[in-house]
Amino acid sequence: MLTTTDPRTGTVTDTVLDATAPEQTDAVVRAAQAAFDELATRDRGWRAGLLDALADALDADRAALVEVADRETGLGPARLDGEVSRAAFQFRLFAEAVREGGYLEAAIDHGGQTALGPAPEIRRLLVPIGPVAVFGSSNFPFAFSVAGGDTASALAGGNPVVLKAHSSHLETSARSFAVLSAAASAYGAPDGVLGIVYGTGAGGALVSHPLVRAVGFTGSLGGGQALMDLIARRDEPIPFYGELSSLNPLVITPGAAAARGGEIADGLFGSFTLGSGQFCTKPGIAFVPNGADGDALVAHLVERTTDAAASVLLNARIATSFDEIRDRLVADGAVELLARGGSGADAAGAAAGFTAAGFTAAPTVLGVAARDITAEVAEEAFGPLVVVARYDTDADIFVALDAVPDSLTATVHSEPAEADAVNALVARLAPRVGRLVFDGYPTGVRVSWAQHHGGPWPATNSQHTSVGVSAIRRFLRPLAYQDAPESVLPAELRDDFRGIPRRVDGVLQLA
Amino acid sequence: MLTTTDPRTGTVTDTVLDATAPEQTDAVVRAAQAAFDELATRDRGWRAGLLDALADALDADRAALVEVADRETGLGPARLDGEVSRAAFQFRLFAEAVREGGYLEAAIDHGGQTALGPAPEIRRLLVPIGPVAVFGSSNFPFAFSVAGGDTASALAGGNPVVLKAHSSHLETSARSFAVLSAAASAYGAPDGVLGIVYGTGAGGALVSHPLVRAVGFTGSLGGGQALMDLIARRDEPIPFYGELSSLNPLVITPGAAAARGGEIADGLFGSFTLGSGQFCTKPGIAFVPNGADGDALVAHLVERTTDAAASVLLNARIATSFDEIRDRLVADGAVELLARGGSGADAAGAAAGFTAAGFTAAPTVLGVAARDITAEVAEEAFGPLVVVARYDTDADIFVALDAVPDSLTATVHSEPAEADAVNALVARLAPRVGRLVFDGYPTGVRVSWAQHHGGPWPATNSQHTSVGVSAIRRFLRPLAYQDAPESVLPAELRDDFRGIPRRVDGVLQLA
Repeated sequence: MLTTTDPRTGTVTDTVLDATAPEQTDAVVRAAQAAFDELATRDRGWRAGLLDALADALDADRAALVEVADRETGLGPARLDGEVSRAAFQFRLFAEAVREGGYLEAAIDHGGQTALGPAPEIRRLLVPIGPVAVFGSSNFPFAFSVAGGDTASALAGGNPVVLKAHSSHLETSARSFAVLSAAASAYGAPDGVLGIVYGTGAGGALVSHPLVRAVGFTGSLGGGQALMDLIARRDEPIPFYGELSSLNPLVITPGAAAARGGEIADGLFGSFTLGSGQFCTKPGIAFVPNGADGDALVAHLVERTTDAAASVLLNARIATSFDEIRDRLVADGAVELLARGGSGADAAGAAAGFTAAGFTAAPTVLGVAARDITAEVAEEAFGPLVVVARYDTDADIFVALDAVPDSLTATVHSEPAEADAVNALVARLAPRVGRLVFDGYPTGVRVSWAQHHGGPWPATNSQHTSVGVSAIRRFLRPLAYQDAPESVLPAELRDDFRGIPRRVDGVLQLA
Repeated sequence: MLTTTDPRTGTVTDTVLDATAPEQTDAVVRAAQAAFDELATRDRGWRAGLLDALADALDADRAALVEVADRETGLGPARLDGEVSRAAFQFRLFAEAVREGGYLEAAIDHGGQTALGPAPEIRRLLVPIGPVAVFGSSNFPFAFSVAGGDTASALAGGNPVVLKAHSSHLETSARSFAVLSAAASAYGAPDGVLGIVYGTGAGGALVSHPLVRAVGFTGSLGGGQALMDLIARRDEPIPFYGELSSLNPLVITPGAAAARGGEIADGLFGSFTLGSGQFCTKPGIAFVPNGADGDALVAHLVERTTDAAASVLLNARIATSFDEIRDRLVADGAVELLARGGSGADAAGAAAGFTAAGFTAAPTVLGVAARDITAEVAEEAFGPLVVVARYDTDADIFVALDAVPDSLTATVHSEPAEADAVNALVARLAPRVGRLVFDGYPTGVRVSWAQHHGGPWPATNSQHTSVGVSAIRRFLRPLAYQDAPESVLPAELRDDFRGIPRRVDGVLQLA
């Protein structure tokens, strides 16, 4: 029997679900495979319509979805309402991409004489791969869970999706699934286009199932590693797309500290405490120059943090881990405890509806000299904690970056007069991250065509992304037709088709 | 000490190379990493010029390269000369792709108000990943080895390459490397942009090295699995791009057997014996209809095969494995031995310069009922062997396809009047392969923009390809810039740049 807990109160919610039995998981995957065969008979326009219908269904059930997710995650109605919008937007963005068709990467090389002699005609496009397993995350009950970007991008590509519900928001998962399934069914989608399983064992059975063709996962490094170990034991390897762990260094130049230290302290406070610090893009280390300007910035950050109330974390595991990492770092003497909020926790907490038995975290600022940073100091604390690393020169920053793992993002706050120094800094940061942020904050990831959400290991283990339109590429493979009769070709590869961008004889052509 | 053997005579060649010691492998990879940092300062035009210079250098050393490769592989001067042309062509094709710039997948989303509120500006392109390990194949001493497509595509993306020379053509590898290295150096490329190691141990050290960022491999399923096991033990996972094993089913419809059975028998004979059957695209199973037309086709194939001389295989391991698989199948009674050539082997072999001590194979045709096919019957015999599978209906073919592994290619020979049946057949074949060939043969893979060379496991383990322009995508990762000052941006992402295709605010724009 599986249950979830209200993180504000620590009480178990009423919802009780059975863990999915192995034979049931097998049946769900087989239904997905049957749906895959059926999906192959529908065209892009049909599939875009399905994605729009799923977006509409999320919007229509918004109030109920937010209510149940708030009870299971404590993230608050405003944030959750925004997240439903984000999830619906993702389905609609992929619908747009599917209609536009560039994602097919269609290419035609006509036959004839070439530099290497006579050559056949080759026509290629990307095709779906089959059932995709998607693991919901703890921290985004909508946008990276059942109704999330992995689901939307896999479906957009023409693949059925089997979801593994995250254990800390089972009812949100079940409701999201019910909403999406009903909408898919009403639209005329084949049974099995969406499936769901519950429980850790079912998750393992899913990634080990021979018919599953790829896995999307957003979660902890340990969880990701466990799934990768299962995949390594499969007869047939499949891609694992994991979004795992990230420190997201943020560098404040001397010029920026001097010009707008207070403003940056406010922004940094807002970013590292947003969503109780439970974002994979949370800035975990801030490099602040030594000297009076840096001191003032840190003092401002300390003041904001000390005054702040405790906030609620998603579940007991996250809360325990957060406390352990913080306490170990401080006890080791590796870092200095600069600020710890939560003094008004009881009052603020009561006002927010959570109790001493809930999962709370006090916003925390730790301090260290940049040159003293080790991998241990830099262990990602999932929650509202930032390490302030003080530096004299950029060389100190580079020493620290060499000591810590790579990240999804790096951020630079600077002034225009420092352009040369910024270029030198960026040259050192770029190889370590997937996204470079300037004079802003890494949290609040825009969903758009150009966006992506990857970075060197352990940020992700892939050269792909779970955010933005190119996320669809993870669930597609190339298929080529050599000298095919036109009746065999997909519409998009026929000579008279002009509806999508294509590369013809090496030349890119617009629709 | 490492040596190679002349496959025509079985005598060890004069060349003796030392296996690369672990500390030497480490030094080669470190040099590659240093070159990577230096390459980041060169632009696309420079890199395209490097690729052209490498192509020119191959052409200039053509005669010597062919001579040494012929001695080590027995593939013959004509084929090897063509393969040098193919290798040079690949470098030039990637130069063209690098200049064109579409491979960067540049995208710009301007900032502003969106459906989800105010959003930052995001600009993205693909960037190189770092040192790439490339394992040379046995069967393509140029086009899939030191001077092959993995090398060309990795370099095209801006990545240094460390090669692992194939053990059966060490001198060809060394000479190819010397030619490419000298050309790179003369062009002004940094030391370390190309490196090479020799010996199985060095290959293992290479894929385990923390600075290596991806592995390209063309070879056996066993060899690929061994490398994947090493990669699974790394602290940091990296992509493994393997081209491994493929049966390449070829289906002859009743109409095609009736209309041009003899012609197809000739074409099939040419395809399964080309290069002594040592192609990953060799048709390993041919489905032939039962009845008089099919009988006549098979009789013609048997006649061609029985009359054919034995041919030389690449090395002792391949020759031994070929004999073992053939003998086991026949001894089991699982298949019938329909034809075995090589009766004129002594005379033809002597004329071709090879002796009884060389590694020879007799072209072989085995027969079986399609419904009796098992995975064992379908074990890939690397060499001139084809299994003829007789069928009554397409359902017999589908039963057989379910029993055998997926492939790089499938081929259909049919007549225009059979369009409906062909569509039904293609619907069943397409999920199992990467390329569908019509009324032709899968050997002779065109190198072009639209081409690719992948397929479901065990054909390859990836959704990418080692042939054609899109092979470059394997060695790139996305990097995004959020609200970046223009001085930080690569030229290709600046507003006033128009030199490459880009997607701006979701709309694809030509250069």
